[in-house]
Formats: sequence, structure tokens, C-alpha cells
Amino acid sequence: MKIRLEQCMPRVGDINGNTHLICQAMQAAERHHCDLLVFPELVLTGYPPEDLLLRPIFMDEVEKSVQHVIGQSKQSIVVFGAPRFDGDCLKNSAFVACHGQLVAVYDKQRLPNYGVFDEQRYFVKGNGENAVVEVNGWRIGLGICEDLWHDELVSKQAKQGCDVWLNLNASPFHEGKQQQRESLTAKRAKQFGCPVVYVNPVGGQDEIVFDGGSHLMDASGELLLRASLFVPTSCDVDLTSVDCCIHDIPQRMQQIYQALVLGTKDYVQRNGSTQVVLGLSGGIDSALTAAIAVHALGKENVLGVLLPSSFSSDHSIKDALDLVENLGIESITLPIAESVSALEHTLAETFKTWGKEKADVTEENIQARARGVLLMAISNKTGRMLLTTGNKSEMAVGYATLYGDMAGGFAVLKDVYKMDVFALCHYLNQAQQVIPQNTIDKPPSAELRPDQKDSDSLPDYEVLDAILKASIEDRLSVAEIVALGYAEDEVKRIVHLVNLAEYKRRQAPPGIKITEKAFGRDRRYPITHAFRMF
Amino acid sequence: MKIRLEQCMPRVGDINGNTHLICQAMQAAERHHCDLLVFPELVLTGYPPEDLLLRPIFMDEVEKSVQHVIGQSKQSIVVFGAPRFDGDCLKNSAFVACHGQLVAVYDKQRLPNYGVFDEQRYFVKGNGENAVVEVNGWRIGLGICEDLWHDELVSKQAKQGCDVWLNLNASPFHEGKQQQRESLTAKRAKQFGCPVVYVNPVGGQDEIVFDGGSHLMDASGELLLRASLFVPTSCDVDLTSVDCCIHDIPQRMQQIYQALVLGTKDYVQRNGSTQVVLGLSGGIDSALTAAIAVHALGKENVLGVLLPSSFSSDHSIKDALDLVENLGIESITLPIAESVSALEHTLAETFKTWGKEKADVTEENIQARARGVLLMAISNKTGRMLLTTGNKSEMAVGYATLYGDMAGGFAVLKDVYKMDVFALCHYLNQAQQVIPQNTIDKPPSAELRPDQKDSDSLPDYEVLDAILKASIEDRLSVAEIVALGYAEDEVKRIVHLVNLAEYKRRQAPPGIKITEKAFGRDRRYPITHAFRMF
Repeated sequence: MKIRLEQCMPRVGDINGNTHLICQAMQAAERHHCDLLVFPELVLTGYPPEDLLLRPIFMDEVEKSVQHVIGQSKQSIVVFGAPRFDGDCLKNSAFVACHGQLVAVYDKQRLPNYGVFDEQRYFVKGNGENAVVEVNGWRIGLGICEDLWHDELVSKQAKQGCDVWLNLNASPFHEGKQQQRESLTAKRAKQFGCPVVYVNPVGGQDEIVFDGGSHLMDASGELLLRASLFVPTSCDVDLTSVDCCIHDIPQRMQQIYQALVLGTKDYVQRNGSTQVVLGLSGGIDSALTAAIAVHALGKENVLGVLLPSSFSSDHSIKDALDLVENLGIESITLPIAESVSALEHTLAETFKTWGKEKADVTEENIQARARGVLLMAISNKTGRMLLTTGNKSEMAVGYATLYGDMAGGFAVLKDVYKMDVFALCHYLNQAQQVIPQNTIDKPPSAELRPDQKDSDSLPDYEVLDAILKASIEDRLSVAEIVALGYAEDEVKRIVHLVNLAEYKRRQAPPGIKITEKAFGRDRRYPITHAFRMF
Repeated sequence: MKIRLEQCMPRVGDINGNTHLICQAMQAAERHHCDLLVFPELVLTGYPPEDLLLRPIFMDEVEKSVQHVIGQSKQSIVVFGAPRFDGDCLKNSAFVACHGQLVAVYDKQRLPNYGVFDEQRYFVKGNGENAVVEVNGWRIGLGICEDLWHDELVSKQAKQGCDVWLNLNASPFHEGKQQQRESLTAKRAKQFGCPVVYVNPVGGQDEIVFDGGSHLMDASGELLLRASLFVPTSCDVDLTSVDCCIHDIPQRMQQIYQALVLGTKDYVQRNGSTQVVLGLSGGIDSALTAAIAVHALGKENVLGVLLPSSFSSDHSIKDALDLVENLGIESITLPIAESVSALEHTLAETFKTWGKEKADVTEENIQARARGVLLMAISNKTGRMLLTTGNKSEMAVGYATLYGDMAGGFAVLKDVYKMDVFALCHYLNQAQQVIPQNTIDKPPSAELRPDQKDSDSLPDYEVLDAILKASIEDRLSVAEIVALGYAEDEVKRIVHLVNLAEYKRRQAPPGIKITEKAFGRDRRYPITHAFRMF
């Protein structure tokens, strides 16, 4: 039995394009005499289609395309995911087709409704019908994504016995996810006593990235095949042979970097841009963002803008220019002094009348916002998307200016803690220097007032990130975090800042989920709430 | 049997405060010799607590407070809503307590997971146990919010027979909602053959407003009691008497206005501000927003800022100053010319090098963003929250500048179509002129270039709003909207603009839901998608 795992790149909502992609893959599978061709979950609509599913015209087109795909099937058994109406109920389904005929439909039984998932907003769960179907003399087991994770469900299926068990997925990346998937499919293969096929798509979709990682476990739970992560590919495996084809799982930093590159590329390009612009401060966040943009879009498509102020140190400008040279990108310099002083002058009389002339965070924000306006002007004038450069540690504690450095269409590092920003720069610099060494070595600073350092108002990033992870990802209480060895005052202050900054995050651009708990749809907190965390 | 409907104002996350509020109401009910005291759904946590529910420390405190409330119960039977763990499963429950003892717990059986609701993200549904409980010789039926709407569920309950049926709610306002509620409770009362008590809270919570509207239907489906909408109140009703106390349902414009006032007041105050600032353009949106802010917070707490440019007409300044006088608020004037020309000067050399000196949307956005920076500077310097003034029609088609006029903590009119902005101004001006007549009469304009009018680039608002409602609220296809009598080109253009502007809306501040389908959590579209709506 020759099986093809189609690790493809569907686009959300692109029903015609996805149908075309499916039909082309079917023709290729015929040419290669595959017995079975397996696509990801909801390949016809892309994942997640969200409220598009609630538009009647959307489902009309889905239904037509499902029929078209079925009609195009030939010798190879084709299994593909699409939504379908079962009476009034919308289901998340796997269609099995062959010789131009529909053989069976299986409906997803476990609908995830946690984290980034909202499937129960749209779908009604299946009843287990056609969990095992017989086609061309083979008994094929079927599951869709979340189904795989529920022991009580697969135990039932295992008893029915099958020759191969297929799992159609739309499983978003977070670091370490591939290992989790494979340890589970290995367990299931042993449970079923048959090979398990796991097919996952590739591509960035708003806040999430599908990293592929399609694979096949044999009946003993041994890996026979693993597709390359982060690239679209068709992989064939012959169950009667013992040939293995196992691409490596990238190391942690490489995984994260590839996810950031793919997520950025797809967000920018799928939203109709080819080029981007970003501010270069000489700091590490903008340097890493620029490097990722160059990798994703090509150096000719990245414009760096230096926006020095009177508080910018000489090394900031030099570091930014060194980066520009290392990356080979175009850059311009737009000093902000004139704009800042005009804005401040306009406000001066009013502030004086109020007796509030003393500089405070207002004046810091004016600088950040003048930069935001200038960058957006470049974006508007050229059609380049503005990338914003803040990291997760900053997003968490609100160490960022709304409409200032938070301005932009996409926040590349939104889910990357500062310590991982450093680690990613070290990873990038392994082969040759991409990020200027001084950018990595100097103490982080927003440079919004003389001699300002991040460490003036925040703990060391090592401590900050550990406290943040404990609170955000592990949901520990203040007492529990203190018990891990952190100072109570510091923990309280950080937890308080995370709460306070919810209103800023609500207006932040989307960014790529790379951790188990990203800001955005993955973490839904009220802005207005009075819960005392301590 | 004397029943008290406690239409209170819990705050999300304020477990101690809500517990105190519940206990005080219990003491009052004792003093008034009430037999039964009914609170809203999840009164102990406020609604919706969102991902706070996933924090162990949050549920620990909830559990302690539930026990405390039960312990405080005396003669009056108390029914209140709170989440609870049933083993590992979180349930949305109604607790029945009396004489310091827990009598019964009922778990919500139908968990809404559509629109603004995400209950299946948190809760497991109940199995119907204790849907009718016997206390002090009365048979009391129980339901929580969505339960009421499901015929198959209540039919089962109706057969068990009860003396009174209680529905605990957290039902957000949209226009016309109260009539929907009452027609349903009337139906249920007849089905059950017993009085139905509907208790709903009051208050603004991020994007939603709870409007109260608690009421009681007798066994024949006649309304015996209706609490005032939009105000916290305790209402007593004696089932053995025939006295009615029925507060009017406000007219449509009054309903919407009250929702906007309450939503604004609670958002601003519950997030720690007492004062607001907003830009006054002389136009109708900012005028209405200012009037609402004055009603919500008091005229002494509203600061209007005039930000004239060289494109501002004389009447704009006069209209804004007339409004300031009508409302009796403080105002300042910050001309933007100096800031705009500094920003443009900084960019001039670059634009010239690129051969892009010709003014386009870039220069319009610079004006809007200079205003945004100045307003945020006032906000930062004074601690006033900045209100943004755009309406739903603009939000829909993206006729607004990100980080410019979209900047602000709260978007009061975000869900109010432009035609309703006009209607609200007429409503406000009934008794005396609040909104200057010229502000209402003149053609709407963003005044970002000479002689600009909204009608240059958009259809008349009557047509625009009708197309938008058909597409957004009724989810009609382009063909279906054209069939209603609108020009195909215009419909296509509008539908396209709504799609394009999703990225802007994702960075918009929250605003008050007043329609059946508000932007925000109520409507979840991908930013990145390729579905062709036509």
C-alpha cells in the first residue's frame, strides 16, 4: 500500500485556489500510482475559516467544490478535510473518495474550544460513524486532529481493527509541539496495532503558523517517515517496504526562527504586500525583526528607518548602520527632533497653564509616537507594511507605547520573550555575524530620556521572563511564584503590570504564536476586571 | 410568596466586592421578609470572567466566597449564580441556599458559544439534576440564561411541575432585546403553567452592556413586574397579590442612548479614570460622543480639544465651540499646522528622492495622526482617558486612520451606524438644543483636504448603512443585496472595503455593542483570507 502524505499550503477562504491545489495533487498521486492520498483537516477552506463559515454563500461554494473534488478522484483513494452541512448542523469532516464517487464521510468527534480554537462556535460533533471504512479491500481508520488526543475515543476505534489509521490535522506550531505529536502517534499506533499517518499543513495564518511535520508511525510505534518542517511537500511511503525517510526536527532556536520567518512571509504576502518597512533603533529587537524580514521577503524588500533623537547614543546609530550593512538592506534616516519639538511646542502653553511643564512619560511617548507617525507615512506612501518590533516581555508588562513603537501591521516578536530574542541572535550569528555584536552586548534601553536603561524600571530579563512564564503560561499565583525563589515585591509588581497592560495588548497588531500561551486569541482576559491577583 | 429580583451591578473579577454586595442584599431581603431572593447568573464573579476562570487562585477564592454566602443565608431562600468545580469539570451553576445551608445546585445545561459568548471554552454542561427543587414546601424550577431559549429543555422541565420558575441571566443589551426576552418568558410561563422570574444584571463590561430588564410573568404569560432598565434595583413581587409594577421599556433611541451612557461610564470608571478627553472637530460624531461623555461622567470631567488645520472650515471651529458652550465643558485649542509641517518637512527629502512628492492619503493620515499624538499627550499628562469618536459605518469601511482618529481607550460609537448617530442627535435635541443644528445639517466631512466631503468617496449614509447591515448583520451575499435594489458596483465596493478594513478593526479600541452583530468578539473574521465575496 503506497500512501502519499500531502503536506500542502492551503489559504483560508481561497476555495477555488485550494480546490485547484487538491486536484493537482490528486493528478500527481495518480501519476505516482499512490493507493491513498491524504490531505490535512479543512484543506478546502484553510484553517481556521472563522466566521466565514457563518456566511451562506461561503458554504454554498464549499459544497460545490467538495463535489468537484470527489468527481475528480480516480484510482487513488483520496481523503480530504472540508466543512459540510448535515441537515442544519455544520460538521468538520473528512471525505473519502475514489473513482469519482464519495465512499464515506467521517465527522470530527472532539471539537477543540480552548486556546486559539473556537470549533464549538461553528461545528457540531460527529457521532463516530465511518470511523473505520473499507475501501478497495483495506480497512482505513479516520480521525481529525483533536480526535487523536482523546484516549476514550481512539480506544473504541482500536477495537474495530484497521490496516492504517489516518489523522487529518490543522495543528499550529508552538515550540516542542512536534515531539508531543510524535509521542502521541507512536502510542496510538501501538494501541491500534497498525500504522498511523499524521498529515499537517504548512503556512502562516494571522497569529498562527502551521509547521507541517507530517509523519508515519508503523504498527510498533517506530517512525518510518517525517516530512521536512515548515515547507510544503508530498511524501510517499510504501507500507510493504522498510525504507525510512526521516527529516530532522530542527533545534529549538531553529524551530522558532523558521516559524517566525514563515509567519512573517505569509502574513505580509497573503495580505497583498511584498515589501516592509521598520524602524531600526540599534537595539536587539529591531535588529532581529529586520533579519527575519530579510529572510522572509528578501533584502531588496526591507527598508530600515533610523529615527534618531537627541537621546539616541552614537552607538545606536552606528549599530543600526552596521546591521543595515550586514543585511544589505536599504535604509533612510529621519531625525525626530523637529517633529517632537513642534508637537511639544503646540502643547507647551496648555501644559504651562496647568502647571505641568515637568517632563514625564508624556514626553517619552511623544518621541515614540512621532516615530510611529513617520513610519506610517513611509508605509502609506510606499505601500510597504510596517513591522513592529516589540517582544513578549515588553508586551506583557506594557513597556511599549500605543500608537508609537506598537504601531504596525504585524508584530513579528510579539510572542518571543526577551531572553529568546538574545538566544535567536546568537543562533543567527553562529555562521557569520548578522546582528552586530554591540547590539547584543549593550544593556537594553528605550533611549527616551538621558541614560535610560530597561533595568531602571524592570528586573533583569532573566528574572522578568521567568516570572512572566510562571504567571502567563503556568498560571501560578503570586505565592507560588515567590516560592520558586523570586522576590515578593517584584512578583507582585510584574503581575500587576501584566494586568494593567491588557488594554494596550488589545490594540496591538497580531504576531506569531510560538509559545504555549500567546497574547491574542490564545489568552482572553477582560480589560475591565477587579480580580486582585494578590 | 414574596420574591425579590435583585437586579444588581456585579463587577467582573471583584469576588470580594460581589460577595459583599450579595450579603448586603440578603440582609435587606431578610428585613423585607422576602421568601425568595434571586440574583443574576455568575453574580459572584461578574460576567464574563473569561480566562480568569482558568487561574486556580481565582476558583479557590470563588469557592471560599460561595461557602461564605451560603453560610450567611437565613429565612429567605437565596438563589445565586457562581462557577463551581464538579470534580475536574467547571460548571456554570445556580446555588440554592437557606438557613445557612446549601439546598441544591443546578448546572447550566445550554452553554452559548456564539456571538460574544465563549462558554464552552470554560464550562461543561449540566445534566439537568435539580432543575426543580423543593424548598420550604415550594417547588422551584431553575434555569440559567440560555437554558430558557431551548424548547426541548424546558419542555422536559415543564412536566415536572413547579410553583415558580427562575431564570438567572447575564444577557447583554442589543436594541430590541427586552421585547425578545419578554415574549419568550411569556411563552415559558404558559408552558410551565407557573410564574417565570427573569433576573438580569446591570452594568458595562468592556464591549457589552447589561441592561437589566428583570421581570416576572404570571402563569398566564401576563407581565406583573418589570424593573427599570439600565439601573440597579431590587424589586419585590408578591405572587398572592395582583399589584403590578411595570416600568416602561424606553423607545429605541433612548435605549441606545442609555446603553452608550452606561457602557461609557462603567468602562471609564471601572478602569480607574474619572475624566476623559476627546477631539472636537465640529462634526456630528465627536459632538454626540461628547454629549454621551457628559451624561456619563459629568461636564466637569470632560475636556474637549479643538485641533484645527488649514483645511478646517470656519464653521467647524464655531460648531465645536457652540457644542462646548451647550455642554458647559472645558475646552482647549491645539492647532496642528506646526506639527504637521514639521512631520512633512522631515519626510520631504525622502519623498522627493523617491519622486513621490504629490500629496495623497499619506498627508491626510499625517494630519489625523498628529491629532492622535496631541490627544494622547493630553491623556498621558492628565490621566484622562481618550475617547475615540468614529461610528460603525466608518469602522466598517475603514474610513478612519489607525493611530489617528482611531486612537483612544474607548470607542463610544463603534457599533452605532451613521444614520443612528443622526437619529440620536435628534433625540438629544428634543427638549433643548445640545448638538448645534449646523453640526447636524452640514454635509459630513473629514476635512483632510480642501472641500472634502464623505460623499466624495462613499455613498449616501442611508444607502451605505443599508448595505452594511445587509452584509454584516444579515450575512447576505452581494447578489442578495443587489436584489434588494442597490447598485451592484456600489455593493461590491462596500463589501470589499469591509473585508479590507479588518486589520484596522483588529487594532481598534473596544466599544459598546448595541446591534445584533458588533465588531469585536461578536464577529470573528480572519484578517488574512482570500474568500471572494463576489
